[in-house]
Amino acid sequence: MGIFNKIFSKKSRLPESDGIFFTEIQNMLGFDPLDLSHYRKAFTHRSSNKLDEKGFPINYERLEFLGDAMLGSVIAAHLFNEVPTGDEGYLTKMRSKIVSREHLNELGRDLNLIKWVESKVSAQHFGENIHGNLFEAFIGAIYLDRGFDYCEKFIHQKVILPYVDIAQLEGKVISYKSLVIEWCQKEKKPFLYEVYEDNGVEGQKHFGVKLKIDGRVVSRARATSKKKAEEQASKRAFFAFQEKINKK
Amino acid sequence: MGIFNKIFSKKSRLPESDGIFFTEIQNMLGFDPLDLSHYRKAFTHRSSNKLDEKGFPINYERLEFLGDAMLGSVIAAHLFNEVPTGDEGYLTKMRSKIVSREHLNELGRDLNLIKWVESKVSAQHFGENIHGNLFEAFIGAIYLDRGFDYCEKFIHQKVILPYVDIAQLEGKVISYKSLVIEWCQKEKKPFLYEVYEDNGVEGQKHFGVKLKIDGRVVSRARATSKKKAEEQASKRAFFAFQEKINKK
Repeated sequence: MGIFNKIFSKKSRLPESDGIFFTEIQNMLGFDPLDLSHYRKAFTHRSSNKLDEKGFPINYERLEFLGDAMLGSVIAAHLFNEVPTGDEGYLTKMRSKIVSREHLNELGRDLNLIKWVESKVSAQHFGENIHGNLFEAFIGAIYLDRGFDYCEKFIHQKVILPYVDIAQLEGKVISYKSLVIEWCQKEKKPFLYEVYEDNGVEGQKHFGVKLKIDGRVVSRARATSKKKAEEQASKRAFFAFQEKINKK
Repeated sequence: MGIFNKIFSKKSRLPESDGIFFTEIQNMLGFDPLDLSHYRKAFTHRSSNKLDEKGFPINYERLEFLGDAMLGSVIAAHLFNEVPTGDEGYLTKMRSKIVSREHLNELGRDLNLIKWVESKVSAQHFGENIHGNLFEAFIGAIYLDRGFDYCEKFIHQKVILPYVDIAQLEGKVISYKSLVIEWCQKEKKPFLYEVYEDNGVEGQKHFGVKLKIDGRVVSRARATSKKKAEEQASKRAFFAFQEKINKK
């Protein structure tokens, strides 16, 4: 970015703390946020007791409702298009798996949304569900800020691409990680999934995994979620060791 | 519309039966459909046993899933914006009221969607829920044909404007119709809500109501749903008779 662009960029017109927040949100979104107040609200816990100028509470709870609805319809449209043979019952079941509480918590945790939370309660007092709640609220904020299409774009990038493997959700594909662990246990070989984080290109967070068996790195993988990176590394190790595993 | 426009209009490029269907769908939507096949599918009952070129069944059941999701998120966004004081629990409750099975059946029935159904079963064998199912499927078809924003436009026009009265849903506003009926029964006066349909301007269906008490027309109203027209006529009658009613 040239010096003139830099001077006139959106970021430089904001107070410094907003500038940092803007850049971080922008990195997370993959596009520009227009009104940061929605995102600030998405990270404001009720314990902060904030009120707006009309005396209404400012916190993320209403945004959760909105985000949950948007997530539901984006996932519905995705499944509808991806699985042309799936009937209504199948589509409904698959969607519940994708938007399960556990899955949303995982998404929120992997994105490390909690680091932005404004609260009067310390982080260790939050239950596990705060991760999923923040994730839903964040989606609600995107909808308010940029509308449905951007919401869909974000969900595709951060939920569908890294997390939604239809074959795996259907249980047709076994988990390679569990195969690898089973094999290591049978063979009494110590194993270790060594996870590291990096911010890759364009600041999108990635998780790298080195799978060590018997102290030796047998495979590596890098993905947008820990789970996916571990699964990928396991798959690679699995194919490398396939003969050995199949013989047992 | 001039003769040249007419010759080159979308409608004139379609086979005659599609031309009629196009015009009717266009009137219903308030904008142009682009791909009629989505709407045809939205009215194809499973009993017709139709298959597409890949051998997948063509019927509206999958579209119901999609439409239900879109309706849910449009209503969520509407409530979020309209009721800034409503918390998550309130918003969830209000949305369930609006998208209740009973309410969806009423919407589908008022739009008379059943007249388009292609089926090998005769209409009297359909249960009551077919109205709501067709309504959801129709919304699904709009989403596939024109995307979320048009879907939202349609839902605003056909669901929110005519049916969603937040105060009434909250139970804060009493039903004027029930007040009028109560009064007539107390006074032993015969009453009749005489309903007629018309296609008004731009082909949008309207319902007219004449409220007759003691054989005399006491009020009239016209609205986009029977229920709303009756309520409106009752409200007018109520204010006209207010003194009488209040004295009892």
